[in-house]
Amino acid sequence: MAQEIVLYWGEGSTPCWRVMIALEEKGLSNYTSKRLAFEKMEHKSAEVMALNPRGQLPTFKFEEKIINESCAACMFLECKFKDQGNQLTPTSCDEKAKMFQRLFEGLTLGQKLGEVIYYDWKVPEGERHESAKTRNREALRAELQLWEGYMAKETGPYIAGKTFSLADVIIFPSIAYAFYLGLCPKRFPKLAQYHDMVKERPSINKTWFSAWKDNNKDTLKDI
Amino acid sequence: MAQEIVLYWGEGSTPCWRVMIALEEKGLSNYTSKRLAFEKMEHKSAEVMALNPRGQLPTFKFEEKIINESCAACMFLECKFKDQGNQLTPTSCDEKAKMFQRLFEGLTLGQKLGEVIYYDWKVPEGERHESAKTRNREALRAELQLWEGYMAKETGPYIAGKTFSLADVIIFPSIAYAFYLGLCPKRFPKLAQYHDMVKERPSINKTWFSAWKDNNKDTLKDI
Repeated sequence: MAQEIVLYWGEGSTPCWRVMIALEEKGLSNYTSKRLAFEKMEHKSAEVMALNPRGQLPTFKFEEKIINESCAACMFLECKFKDQGNQLTPTSCDEKAKMFQRLFEGLTLGQKLGEVIYYDWKVPEGERHESAKTRNREALRAELQLWEGYMAKETGPYIAGKTFSLADVIIFPSIAYAFYLGLCPKRFPKLAQYHDMVKERPSINKTWFSAWKDNNKDTLKDI
Repeated sequence: MAQEIVLYWGEGSTPCWRVMIALEEKGLSNYTSKRLAFEKMEHKSAEVMALNPRGQLPTFKFEEKIINESCAACMFLECKFKDQGNQLTPTSCDEKAKMFQRLFEGLTLGQKLGEVIYYDWKVPEGERHESAKTRNREALRAELQLWEGYMAKETGPYIAGKTFSLADVIIFPSIAYAFYLGLCPKRFPKLAQYHDMVKERPSINKTWFSAWKDNNKDTLKDI
């Protein structure tokens, strides 16, 4: 069935990476991978726009079904291939509650990360303010400290406890992006420990963006 | 079991409303309802902060379990009370895919709505720009047009098709907020039709914010 799966993705996009990880976790590595270049505006091409009116990546097609929202695509794959590959959802509703709590909170982390990283891209030159940049960085720091606290209190090594779950699939790319951009491991030791463990996982290691394999940047070193 | 459920909520908060709707849908109307006042900063009170380090509403407690993210709380209730009240999740993975696609896209709608409505509250006076306000309003218009298109193509009257689902629980409050703030029904006829039908649903009607029962505002009339 894997040959009927098409993923349009772009290098450096954490939402795209989520779907790539989920596909590997579910043993679906034989999908059609269409790597597009954001810098050439290929995400706004007619081919993508026909499948995704938002003109965004990931754009994801499963047989005749189009599921472009990255979290929805991951949840669909877990549902459809429940007994194939690694199980990414705990069975009890109580454990699911924790997973969903973290998963949705992870979207806030991703958003606060984006507000720092993409500030100059999102905000036109005449509207930029140093005070806004400072505030965004402070908000990101507080958010990361919250997650550092969560990991310190967690009963298992993963985002939602003892097993790798959809919460990790959704959130790990943001954590990895932060460290790639120079987040200080000494200031966030629990997140660093989590990052160093999960990055060796086959589904993650295999799909790591090639551009992120060079030296770390320093955008977030003072966070 | 309903007496072991506590919801801290605030008037006018669409995330709070989601949880109130889900509780009614699952036949759990006998929960402990703690209405707090945002204007008195009660969401930052010690009582809330002890349960929710973000100091946000909803803050939701189910027995000893704390689930503060509104979508996660709704998904947990649906899981825990699968066979009680109304079923809010379709059974097939294909239908679930559509529901999750819309549910997560709904968060984008909520975000774009917030960027228009709360601009002056979010952005300090010295950083405000008319150009940003215009851009935010245009982004909201485009987003609402996308949803108008979705509803026009939909095979059923609800957000994700033939049955009322978690997608409606998550998204309806944003649609209702937009119309309360003066969104023009003639410009968005399919969304208006959806709004007028769903607002009569018992779970929605019963939980409608009392402040929203007066005349409509005109904040969004030109969108």
